[in-house]
Amino acid sequence: MKYLAEIDIMPQKEILDPQGKAVKLGLHNLNMDTIDNVRIGKHIRLEVEADSEAQARETVDAACRQLLANLIMEEYSITLKTA
Amino acid sequence: MKYLAEIDIMPQKEILDPQGKAVKLGLHNLNMDTIDNVRIGKHIRLEVEADSEAQARETVDAACRQLLANLIMEEYSITLKTA
Repeated sequence: MKYLAEIDIMPQKEILDPQGKAVKLGLHNLNMDTIDNVRIGKHIRLEVEADSEAQARETVDAACRQLLANLIMEEYSITLKTA
Repeated sequence: MKYLAEIDIMPQKEILDPQGKAVKLGLHNLNMDTIDNVRIGKHIRLEVEADSEAQARETVDAACRQLLANLIMEEYSITLKTA
């Protein structure tokens, strides 16, 4: 069965995010000064072929740990649905 | 009222994603060959101060159109919740 995984990889709360700071300044310069606390990360969408949702989640989790996320500085969350 | 916006910015379906292709190859080299169709985009999390959810969505939508997304090559989706 085919599953669609949506992965968010964000800098950990304790880590400064200079890119987010710069974007916040840019938005304020466009007069959108109601926006605050901008943080920027990656969004990854992929398909997994697996027998069950648990197996699919295990594969995607291994992919995050081994390649996609840098666990020293980033945290990830996974959402799975059937494709 | 404070709203938390989660924004996904992804390359449009018609656009090649060489970064996603490279990551797919990397995952296959790690023996995760059940994974396919990897696409990589940005995830942005921000807070908006607004009177209503509609107003918050309007602000975030304007931010996407004017600064965050390149609408020629990317598409965006917004999820809002109260912070």
